[in-house]
Amino acid sequence: MSETATAPRDHVAGDATMPPPPPPLVQTERAPRRSSAEEARTLLAATDVGALASLSADSYPWSSLVGFAALGDGTPVLLVSTMAEHGRNLERDPRASLMVAHPVRELDQLAHGRLTLAARAERPEGEEQERARKAFLAAIPAANAYEPFVDFSLWVLRPERVRWVGGYGRMNTVTLEAYAEAEADPTYAAAPGAVAHLNADHADALVDMARALGGYPDALTARCDAIDRYGIDLTVETPRGHAPTRVGFAERVDDPDGLRPATIELARRARA
Amino acid sequence: MSETATAPRDHVAGDATMPPPPPPLVQTERAPRRSSAEEARTLLAATDVGALASLSADSYPWSSLVGFAALGDGTPVLLVSTMAEHGRNLERDPRASLMVAHPVRELDQLAHGRLTLAARAERPEGEEQERARKAFLAAIPAANAYEPFVDFSLWVLRPERVRWVGGYGRMNTVTLEAYAEAEADPTYAAAPGAVAHLNADHADALVDMARALGGYPDALTARCDAIDRYGIDLTVETPRGHAPTRVGFAERVDDPDGLRPATIELARRARA
Repeated sequence: MSETATAPRDHVAGDATMPPPPPPLVQTERAPRRSSAEEARTLLAATDVGALASLSADSYPWSSLVGFAALGDGTPVLLVSTMAEHGRNLERDPRASLMVAHPVRELDQLAHGRLTLAARAERPEGEEQERARKAFLAAIPAANAYEPFVDFSLWVLRPERVRWVGGYGRMNTVTLEAYAEAEADPTYAAAPGAVAHLNADHADALVDMARALGGYPDALTARCDAIDRYGIDLTVETPRGHAPTRVGFAERVDDPDGLRPATIELARRARA
Repeated sequence: MSETATAPRDHVAGDATMPPPPPPLVQTERAPRRSSAEEARTLLAATDVGALASLSADSYPWSSLVGFAALGDGTPVLLVSTMAEHGRNLERDPRASLMVAHPVRELDQLAHGRLTLAARAERPEGEEQERARKAFLAAIPAANAYEPFVDFSLWVLRPERVRWVGGYGRMNTVTLEAYAEAEADPTYAAAPGAVAHLNADHADALVDMARALGGYPDALTARCDAIDRYGIDLTVETPRGHAPTRVGFAERVDDPDGLRPATIELARRARA
């Protein structure tokens, strides 16, 4: 699971100046986090709709809403009608891309993750066709009503290039090998509830983690921004200003219900 | 506000058969509904993120998440960085399209509305540039933090073709004139709350409407599926099966808070 993350490039300020966050007072071990490939596969697992870009007859790029499923190696599956412009487009030209965004509509969606997968569209055959069909009907149950119609066809999108954007200034190209091999974070569905619970009921544990393990012994408060199988993202408030930090779990969480015991272990360690 | 709606084309069934819904027992006047252009402009007003399709250097169509605002005639405004692939794409080739989907993640999103607007991207100048900038910063307040960075540029998307899809089998091409002139439904933000309230507390009024005004005197129950400035979409349960129908308000609702009095008038009329 090695990762050669692109260092976030800085935007070049015109008139604006943004003060940097206060640095940690104690150097801590870098907490592990999901690779870009794992981020991409987690996004793919977390939703079943995306935006397809295809090429229209007038050679304009055409953006449309599609439901999708994914095969085990992250190959997206579509079921589209030739009544839809994108269905006719794929018949004519296999070049396409699929964008999948973090399914959050509150707050600032541009600050959240998304993935663009450029691909060649192909009709699956034989055993793969049956796997694709089953995956699609499992992901989009409503498709059982229209899958038998003869104007609908299954497509698989063979990945050619994968780009992940994590929010403002976080982005990376993911190799096709890393994409195919990476696993979706099994805790993604439990994470929003865990974040809300930690902030509502365990503010004391969060500030202990930030002080003892996050490099900010001067933390006054700490808010949990995100949680995943590898650890917790915090924003700490200090007398020197606000700063982001991260604390890592002792071990990667493999159980969808494993965030709670891992967090309890982390709080114990912070207080040891 | 005339509308030459495309009659929904039927999918051609292979093996599947879908029984048609039971017809109304009483012929009623066709209830007015939003034109496709009004649907498109309402979608545009209801959200501030969409999927941009642009052309990459390798001539693949590239799908990416963008925030947008709209000028008064429905011209979308983007603020994009050349650090983003789509920003570099627009610099190279102005052909693009923007897809905006109904901001609903529950249920079956493919059953809800979306809009694709194919356009040429241009840098606005002079007075339009200032209008575009103000509109974008009002729609995406977070952009105040990055708008001053020199790698960000404003773009307007000059509409060339507008396609609206209302869900399965409901779709229409919208003329550019109708698109530019149409108004977003001012009641869209209040509509989800009104639907929930009607179903929770006024099931009796809904069934009265379906019986007296919707053509289904044999309605046993009626559920409100949607409400808009022109009327109410219902699904009625009858001894003959379930059917969709629609009841129209006496007058178009122009006030964002006007759904309640219009609905009360409709219920009174149903009981008269």
